[in-house]
Amino acid sequence: MKQLLEKILSDCSRYTSEGVVASYIPELAKADPSDLGICIISDGGKTDCAGDYEKRFTMQSVVKPLVLLLALEDRGEDVVERICGVEATGKPFDAFNYSDLALKNEHINPMINAGAIALCTLIKGDSYDERFSRLIELAKRLSGDPSLSVDEAVYLSEKATGNKNRALAYMLKAYGMIDCDIEEVLDMYFKACSISVNCKNLAAIAYVLANHGIAPGSGEQLISAEHAKYVNAIMTICGMYNGSGEFALRVGIPAKSGVGGGIMAAVPSRMGIGIYSPALDKKGNSVAGVKALERLSEEIKLSIF
Amino acid sequence: MKQLLEKILSDCSRYTSEGVVASYIPELAKADPSDLGICIISDGGKTDCAGDYEKRFTMQSVVKPLVLLLALEDRGEDVVERICGVEATGKPFDAFNYSDLALKNEHINPMINAGAIALCTLIKGDSYDERFSRLIELAKRLSGDPSLSVDEAVYLSEKATGNKNRALAYMLKAYGMIDCDIEEVLDMYFKACSISVNCKNLAAIAYVLANHGIAPGSGEQLISAEHAKYVNAIMTICGMYNGSGEFALRVGIPAKSGVGGGIMAAVPSRMGIGIYSPALDKKGNSVAGVKALERLSEEIKLSIF
Amino acid sequence: MKQLLEKILSDCSRYTSEGVVASYIPELAKADPSDLGICIISDGGKTDCAGDYEKRFTMQSVVKPLVLLLALEDRGEDVVERICGVEATGKPFDAFNYSDLALKNEHINPMINAGAIALCTLIKGDSYDERFSRLIELAKRLSGDPSLSVDEAVYLSEKATGNKNRALAYMLKAYGMIDCDIEEVLDMYFKACSISVNCKNLAAIAYVLANHGIAPGSGEQLISAEHAKYVNAIMTICGMYNGSGEFALRVGIPAKSGVGGGIMAAVPSRMGIGIYSPALDKKGNSVAGVKALERLSEEIKLSIF
Amino acid sequence: MKQLLEKILSDCSRYTSEGVVASYIPELAKADPSDLGICIISDGGKTDCAGDYEKRFTMQSVVKPLVLLLALEDRGEDVVERICGVEATGKPFDAFNYSDLALKNEHINPMINAGAIALCTLIKGDSYDERFSRLIELAKRLSGDPSLSVDEAVYLSEKATGNKNRALAYMLKAYGMIDCDIEEVLDMYFKACSISVNCKNLAAIAYVLANHGIAPGSGEQLISAEHAKYVNAIMTICGMYNGSGEFALRVGIPAKSGVGGGIMAAVPSRMGIGIYSPALDKKGNSVAGVKALERLSEEIKLSIF
Repeated sequence: MKQLLEKILSDCSRYTSEGVVASYIPELAKADPSDLGICIISDGGKTDCAGDYEKRFTMQSVVKPLVLLLALEDRGEDVVERICGVEATGKPFDAFNYSDLALKNEHINPMINAGAIALCTLIKGDSYDERFSRLIELAKRLSGDPSLSVDEAVYLSEKATGNKNRALAYMLKAYGMIDCDIEEVLDMYFKACSISVNCKNLAAIAYVLANHGIAPGSGEQLISAEHAKYVNAIMTICGMYNGSGEFALRVGIPAKSGVGGGIMAAVPSRMGIGIYSPALDKKGNSVAGVKALERLSEEIKLSIF
Repeated sequence: MKQLLEKILSDCSRYTSEGVVASYIPELAKADPSDLGICIISDGGKTDCAGDYEKRFTMQSVVKPLVLLLALEDRGEDVVERICGVEATGKPFDAFNYSDLALKNEHINPMINAGAIALCTLIKGDSYDERFSRLIELAKRLSGDPSLSVDEAVYLSEKATGNKNRALAYMLKAYGMIDCDIEEVLDMYFKACSISVNCKNLAAIAYVLANHGIAPGSGEQLISAEHAKYVNAIMTICGMYNGSGEFALRVGIPAKSGVGGGIMAAVPSRMGIGIYSPALDKKGNSVAGVKALERLSEEIKLSIF
Repeated sequence: MKQLLEKILSDCSRYTSEGVVASYIPELAKADPSDLGICIISDGGKTDCAGDYEKRFTMQSVVKPLVLLLALEDRGEDVVERICGVEATGKPFDAFNYSDLALKNEHINPMINAGAIALCTLIKGDSYDERFSRLIELAKRLSGDPSLSVDEAVYLSEKATGNKNRALAYMLKAYGMIDCDIEEVLDMYFKACSISVNCKNLAAIAYVLANHGIAPGSGEQLISAEHAKYVNAIMTICGMYNGSGEFALRVGIPAKSGVGGGIMAAVPSRMGIGIYSPALDKKGNSVAGVKALERLSEEIKLSIF
Repeated sequence: MKQLLEKILSDCSRYTSEGVVASYIPELAKADPSDLGICIISDGGKTDCAGDYEKRFTMQSVVKPLVLLLALEDRGEDVVERICGVEATGKPFDAFNYSDLALKNEHINPMINAGAIALCTLIKGDSYDERFSRLIELAKRLSGDPSLSVDEAVYLSEKATGNKNRALAYMLKAYGMIDCDIEEVLDMYFKACSISVNCKNLAAIAYVLANHGIAPGSGEQLISAEHAKYVNAIMTICGMYNGSGEFALRVGIPAKSGVGGGIMAAVPSRMGIGIYSPALDKKGNSVAGVKALERLSEEIKLSIF
């Protein structure tokens, strides 16, 4: 497997030059566009890695499945769906599927910014600091890495420049879909996006999602099997932004990408995959990361379809 | 004329029951829906009034022509149009003419909230307090009423509930159309909307717009004739929100309405009109106010078409 | 006046190189982009012309005010407005102001293709041939030119390539806004767009609109004064497509443009103007034609604002 | 299995009263809203049925996967994707994901009307009659039922009332996405939608999709494994219209619904399912059909996530 991974990375590294590193959050622009790393966890914990698999990057939208997961665990599906729709929007991650009408629940989903911000308000906690603590605790528990922490420079950069997210959040508030202090919930959201991880962390979290909520070593049920399935389904529908359809055709694996360059992919009942390569296509997905997943899916037949 | 006005108000007062008082700003909901007043200033200052013409109400969107005017006087047409488009949007006053695309200058205009907020940033002043002072000074000068002031209760109510305006302002900032502290510019905008006026004040301001910028008594050139014409044109195109087309057909006078129930109408070279009646139609225009203007326009042939 | 017109054309002719001749109807692409002509009719019939004022071109959208006029004369305002809205759409001439919703009356207006097609169905006649005959009769009567006829080559070119208009017409039918044979109504619409005119014809029609429906020589009431006013108002709101706001600011005259390069402008109570210059801007308006009208409006103070 | 199916139908039959039979095609309105039938084919051909599984209904949108399949077999993925996008639109089946912009490939997908119409033009054949013959041949071959035929009454009803599809087709032509006679391609499309099937037929076709293109009995490779996977992926992303996300969460099986009341569901490597119940929800999906699939998926763990 390790050899296969190295072959794939070697073949796909040329695609890193076809994308560009995200720059709308200034701190992200510092990433090295030629980075490419992968980690796979399968068979109860077997770990294979290649390339820049230990490089750290921020989760960005890859944290959205965790926000959804914690909202589901804290409140259940009904409450979650009362606040946040589950349909693909056909639009970029920072847009509503909305034009003239009143904004409604059905115009957002958990994999776009507006939906993720709305779901932050459902996570339990007396303060947004406490809610964030519970979220990063979940990330540590699922990844098995108690050292996870926030990249302060990215967090501050997001906070300083996140005006479109502020616009989205005030729109949610204006239409009664959330009711909280906007800067507080955004502070939690920006911190969540700024959690620093590596490919191993993403593979470990994805493994739990793929493995019906059960930890690889201990066999402990970390999250409910139902919620793991729920997250996998929604990642398939809209986890790769408005490139989710093409990703389903080419790769066929539930996955979530982030503008930090990470992709977390969960092959149900088989494996968890973490990929990092920060050069992005126009829709915000890692170019070489998607190509590597496509190759891997072909080589070892990972498509769920 | 006074008799005519009284006849028209008497005939139109029944329409006050067809509208509803604005309630999205809680303080506005306290208005008496049956109020109906009118004031006309013509012939170098001749003033005729009827009904509740001395009742005070807040300008709300009626202040937008003044924001535009001051931005024009401070910066000129080119700078204004670099920030703010001039086309009707076909949408409600609190929407962009925008869906998936990057927000552009051409998606806003000075008569919708987003455009008016953008224009506030062009008004000169070292602080937003100073900018507002200069705006209310302009209102005092044009109306000839040095006693104009902000209705503090409405201002605070707007500030507390103005989340959609916050969303619009952050969207403008996210797309680089404005670059300022959002709460500061909104504070100015909310204060501007909350300037308390009566029908006489609106008629006096409208008279100056109709009279090529010249004050009725003194003959003083208060604003440039070009800018008065500019404001009259834009009021015709989109001053009555997405009801401007019907208003042009039925009434045919440059005018601006506000959700406080006021309408300011400028008949070029002839007269200024101020109307107040707070029961609104679905588009945010005063029902009885529009009907009274329609009758008046028919009776004394005011249509510019 | 003639000298002024010649001076203006001479100054504005350089703008003809800034636009491009319409090519989506292949036959229109044959026009000479450097053509520029003007005709003004005022004071009971006084006619001044300059430049290529005798060149013939097809009316295209300039026929829309006539379609509206005949629908108004045949059915009255209420029936017209039950079928066709009167608000600017903020969109191009071949679009609806519509996205997900059911298409409604309020999403169209008489100055965009969909609205004009809908209004064709209101014109009286046992067949669409008869309806068209009555329309061209109206054009002959208002222009005082009994020789007006259809440019067959343009008509056939439009018919062969008018698929977007077919799409609009079937959409109107799908939503129950019209109920007729689509090819028949489109045949009438394509013929109407293909009526061949010169600047004098447009100036003569515009004169009647400006002159409250009264013919210049005979003093005959050709159309109702109310309907003339109605058409002038709607031309102001949306006669220059989604460039109507800027035109109101710069020129300030009710006018209708067509992609054939014509502009028909009616200065209420003063004059009718016909302009021809086929090089268009991106919104479909004649570049040099608009510039010439802007100059003329400044020089002899034509703005209605 | 048969007992389980009967239990599920019995439990779910009450949901038939929560939907309404499609009426926009008049002939469809004749269906009995209380009908509910199911058929499952698994394990190399084992067939289990319950309820109204022999009732005939028209495929409607369920034919879209077959149109896509034949276009893929005839032209390959690259050609197909040059014409038709693959992303969910977030909109109803008869809409574009399009507002002001030029219509593009990426605004349509094979599971909405516009995309399916575009794909009809890619199917090989000297005439649209021949193309249709090849399509129904494919349906016969995959279903193993040589008796399949068109329901003439439904076909004529669709043809008579399909104005929105005409509008969509002319829009595709206006933007150069298709280039053919519109009535001919629509005639093929209406016939395709009107192919009469029963639950067994749908289950048999779905079995081939689930079984990597291989026929149950003979083991013959009827279609390429790659194309079967492709169709399953796109059905997951947008096969249940703008209810595909919720269906993925609740059921988790690639599936396509039609307004005739049918659902065809392919459980990769496991089974094909055909369901019929014509009472539809607001998005056009069979209410009781979806409920029955949800129950079945829970009972025997069919979700691919």
